[in-house]
Amino acid sequence: MKKFEEKTVKTEEIFNGKIVQLQIDEVQLPNGKTSKREIIKHPGAVAVIPITKDNKIVFVEQYRKPLEKSLVEIPAGKLERGENPLVAAVRELEEETGYTTNSLSFVTSFYSSPGFANELLHIYITDDLVKLDEPQPGDDDEFVEIVELTLDEAKQYVEEERIHDAKTNYAVLYLHALEGR
Amino acid sequence: MKKFEEKTVKTEEIFNGKIVQLQIDEVQLPNGKTSKREIIKHPGAVAVIPITKDNKIVFVEQYRKPLEKSLVEIPAGKLERGENPLVAAVRELEEETGYTTNSLSFVTSFYSSPGFANELLHIYITDDLVKLDEPQPGDDDEFVEIVELTLDEAKQYVEEERIHDAKTNYAVLYLHALEGR
Repeated sequence: MKKFEEKTVKTEEIFNGKIVQLQIDEVQLPNGKTSKREIIKHPGAVAVIPITKDNKIVFVEQYRKPLEKSLVEIPAGKLERGENPLVAAVRELEEETGYTTNSLSFVTSFYSSPGFANELLHIYITDDLVKLDEPQPGDDDEFVEIVELTLDEAKQYVEEERIHDAKTNYAVLYLHALEGR
Repeated sequence: MKKFEEKTVKTEEIFNGKIVQLQIDEVQLPNGKTSKREIIKHPGAVAVIPITKDNKIVFVEQYRKPLEKSLVEIPAGKLERGENPLVAAVRELEEETGYTTNSLSFVTSFYSSPGFANELLHIYITDDLVKLDEPQPGDDDEFVEIVELTLDEAKQYVEEERIHDAKTNYAVLYLHALEGR
């Protein structure tokens, strides 16, 4: 949908990094005036809700530099250029948890913060986990620790804000909703 | 929690905008090596799930330049410096929907995308809406249109990806979970 479309008058590239690009678009508003939009370009990301045979959820704890603290999150990572999200999801699951899977179901996708960023996140779920004999090496600057929790424990983590990000709060609410059916 | 803390060796400011700031931190990893983190600083944001007397949800449709399309979202906006999130939520509700409220309940908060941004979003809900006699003027570069939907209609919008952002997908799932109780 193009309602209230803002046509680009000029684009200024500010930064081209490893993860994000930043540009400022001068736009023409629906009323004919102009304004500026600060835009973060991001390759998109995938996340997996992994459920073990004994009905625990596999999370990973990692340090999040923008927050200066660690969070407990569902396994996730960014898409490589042109990568199929489902393939990326299997890769991130393997690298971060040491599990792989033979079946992965799509849950939802959403833009993380559409006001300033184009990051689109795809979420999958699996209860068909297979322990890898040889763990896949992840990014060499990523340090994660596996945390397996029951749904009740995960809800407690949300209360305590140890789980505190969009995809993981969504995942816990999703499992809560499933359970209530 | 500070598990796997990444200590800042050096910070380079790249951009200081109206909405976001961008910096690159050189960090010391737990294994002693160094890496770089691209970090977006954002003032944080608030969102409201407004429910009318006849049990419809009040959304707003607006153009999202980073996506080059419009989305249907719950009313939201960024925090002013030092602003109480509850006060900001009332302000955004008034500016974007023409409703105000006498009671607003906290639902949850989460970081939108903790891998690269520190944006924290606070979500509230109200079913005590009062139509304002005089609509509050919003930002002069914001164009929004009100869309009132039943929960079933909202679920259909999620299917069609007309609703397609973290806070609004969360809100629809939240109402779905409430309904199932």
